[in-house]
Amino acid sequence: MDSEYSISQSALETDKGAYLLDPKIMAHIIYCLDVEDRAQLIEVLEPLHPADIADALEQMNAYDRRRLVTLYDQEFAGDILTELDESIREEIMALLRPEVLAEAVRDLESDDVVDLLEDLETPQQDVILGALDDTDRAAVEQSLSYPEYSAGRLMQRELVVAPEIWTVGEAIDFLRGAERLPEQFYHVTLVDSRMHPVGNVTLGRLMSNKRDIQLRDLVEDVFQIIPAMQDEAEVAYAFNQYHLISAPVVDEDGRVVGVITIDDAMTVLDNEHEEDILRLAGVGESKLSASVMDTTWQRFPWLAVNLVTAILASLVIAQFEATIEGMVALAVLMPIIASMGGNAGTQSLTVAVRSMATKDLTSSNVLRVLRREVIVGLVNGVIFAALTAVIGLLWFGSFQLGYVIALAMVINLVTAGLAGTGIPVLLDKAGIDPALASGAFVTTVTDVIGFFAFLGLAAVLLF
Amino acid sequence: MDSEYSISQSALETDKGAYLLDPKIMAHIIYCLDVEDRAQLIEVLEPLHPADIADALEQMNAYDRRRLVTLYDQEFAGDILTELDESIREEIMALLRPEVLAEAVRDLESDDVVDLLEDLETPQQDVILGALDDTDRAAVEQSLSYPEYSAGRLMQRELVVAPEIWTVGEAIDFLRGAERLPEQFYHVTLVDSRMHPVGNVTLGRLMSNKRDIQLRDLVEDVFQIIPAMQDEAEVAYAFNQYHLISAPVVDEDGRVVGVITIDDAMTVLDNEHEEDILRLAGVGESKLSASVMDTTWQRFPWLAVNLVTAILASLVIAQFEATIEGMVALAVLMPIIASMGGNAGTQSLTVAVRSMATKDLTSSNVLRVLRREVIVGLVNGVIFAALTAVIGLLWFGSFQLGYVIALAMVINLVTAGLAGTGIPVLLDKAGIDPALASGAFVTTVTDVIGFFAFLGLAAVLLF
Repeated sequence: MDSEYSISQSALETDKGAYLLDPKIMAHIIYCLDVEDRAQLIEVLEPLHPADIADALEQMNAYDRRRLVTLYDQEFAGDILTELDESIREEIMALLRPEVLAEAVRDLESDDVVDLLEDLETPQQDVILGALDDTDRAAVEQSLSYPEYSAGRLMQRELVVAPEIWTVGEAIDFLRGAERLPEQFYHVTLVDSRMHPVGNVTLGRLMSNKRDIQLRDLVEDVFQIIPAMQDEAEVAYAFNQYHLISAPVVDEDGRVVGVITIDDAMTVLDNEHEEDILRLAGVGESKLSASVMDTTWQRFPWLAVNLVTAILASLVIAQFEATIEGMVALAVLMPIIASMGGNAGTQSLTVAVRSMATKDLTSSNVLRVLRREVIVGLVNGVIFAALTAVIGLLWFGSFQLGYVIALAMVINLVTAGLAGTGIPVLLDKAGIDPALASGAFVTTVTDVIGFFAFLGLAAVLLF
Repeated sequence: MDSEYSISQSALETDKGAYLLDPKIMAHIIYCLDVEDRAQLIEVLEPLHPADIADALEQMNAYDRRRLVTLYDQEFAGDILTELDESIREEIMALLRPEVLAEAVRDLESDDVVDLLEDLETPQQDVILGALDDTDRAAVEQSLSYPEYSAGRLMQRELVVAPEIWTVGEAIDFLRGAERLPEQFYHVTLVDSRMHPVGNVTLGRLMSNKRDIQLRDLVEDVFQIIPAMQDEAEVAYAFNQYHLISAPVVDEDGRVVGVITIDDAMTVLDNEHEEDILRLAGVGESKLSASVMDTTWQRFPWLAVNLVTAILASLVIAQFEATIEGMVALAVLMPIIASMGGNAGTQSLTVAVRSMATKDLTSSNVLRVLRREVIVGLVNGVIFAALTAVIGLLWFGSFQLGYVIALAMVINLVTAGLAGTGIPVLLDKAGIDPALASGAFVTTVTDVIGFFAFLGLAAVLLF
């Protein structure tokens, strides 16, 4: 009667330790590998959720992973593969014996198989497709015909539809007589005679209404149809914005071809966020379990772009070598201006990128937002100008130096507000992902303007 | 037969324009406000989803918001308040006539009322509580008795339970006879005689199985019980990790007191991500619709911390004034070292913070991750050292300068890897949110070490 998986022991805790994979379990797994005790390993892993086994695999080193896959052998379930991070999924699939892999894949739902296949090379794809029976293979191949990251790839093909003219009684009889229903479904989707979806009825309403009531009188207020070619990020947005639980997917002719449920949308939303955070920090698709070479390579491009940016800033400084020679205090203070501008720019930029992702920053309010950013930059600029002027005065005893640093600070913080909002908006219009590219541009602008304003004003006003 | 809300016209598009609030609708709304045509305003807003009306309110200026609330008057639905961003929700609630506000709140589910009340001052809370009928008020007050951001606050109190000893037939008869069922429910939760939840049966399985089958034979594999005091972020993690659709919430004695569904968990997950992104960028809780003063104030603390950081870096530079005076090229090149270190540190830091949020970085693998970061820093350090050495040589024609900048680059990128991973881990151990605080510490370390290494090596090796 108990459920099959017991979730990690500490899950009943209320603090941050809940759901953390118990280090004792981890140690026990490694012990089993050390003594090569297969029976005991199975006993330890059996009660764990596949997602937790996948986490354990991600957290151990490659040597232990190999030992685990070899020892666990045919117990290795397809669900674990689904939960594994892509960076080590291929590694694990290569370690599994072909018969074990085929068996593992046969147990999966078709959308999970699609997910596994996406990242594989053609020969490996063929091995897995060969393991499926004809119906499943056809379903998988159909899904793969939609572009990557489209609703068509994301959807589940099994859904429950009913003619819009049915009554509650007819629908219930149909469901009770159906040979095979999807594992999870929440709605009966009503369709017209051309198979166009026209509304959703929840199972709860179906169960609690009289048999002679028309299904069309029970449809939910909120109903959203998803085109199969729509980008999955848009799908996730729609689920989040309109609190959808499931939505039918239609082909180009508006005929229903599948269904997307909220759990799929939640996974996409999670991935999109992850991507945004990592892109803002100039990290490609870094995963903890990625190899040293992959990680180095993922971080390289952003550092290379940053080197170019930094050299541009240095070129600006080089124009003022004579000025700096005349007053070395300038070299001491100039990083303050650049650093404050860079930080203020990153603040504006992050808010702008997020607001575009949530569709809160639009053509209706972009001018107002820009104006606000400039005012914020001005206010913070004046406050920090005063602070740094005092520091400049106390430290180097020069009123003029305080004056110069204050002016440069105001100029650079206003620039930061303008560039931090304007650059991501322009990049987005140009079809470039603002999360990925804005950082480099904004920092270049604040560095160049910061050094130029500070050293230029110094050259003019101090000598 | 059509659903009540039609979602924005362009939603059938597959590209990024889908779900974007149509600018024509926005212009139409403003037109209605300008000519004070109430009937037409109602006609425009009627077909919109409350989430889209809320977005429109967020995107217009405060003057238009006031006009809209006044003109729309008693048509203003409670759902719009629920969807509104907190930063302008209070403003709108203050604009609504008390009778309209009371009516709007009466239409809401109890968990939505709790959500509205959380951010209000006590007198305003009392006004709203007064508008509710006794049962609803009791439910809301009960929820408010749980701490903010707990599962108890998040849960819905209405859920469907059945004794574990029932059969399918008994459950179906009960559901069909029930006077009032929750708006949305996906599971029947089985409870033992002490009201402890023991399993979930999906409605789909209930409908497709024979009447004499025991409910306990139909429970889902994955079942998770949530303690009412658990942090909502942990709840969201559990839903995401274990693909839960709904989970019963229990009190300290393990008795079921409510249910959390995946749509609530998705909202929490979305907010947590948003918070992480903004915190990493040193922005408190910035929203586009926040006022200039609020925005200035939200960004001030991080800029203040950054000023201190920058001054620390300047103090390091000041130690080498004589060295810089001897060779101004050092002042030109030194920002390159600091900037590369800062960026590499941010990369490591972001990956570490994300990995802690997803519980992928644990005590089992922290040493391995640290080692990997150091090696990555070393490899990228050597590559960029070579590049900058060549630049230093070509630009300033000095082998020694190239040598110094290369060494400093390697030192600073290794430092960045160590600090970027080690600092968030240490902050987390100390109970400080690493997303919020790591940035300042990591940049301080890379700036200070970067300037010190470069100028220090120059002082020793060049003169």
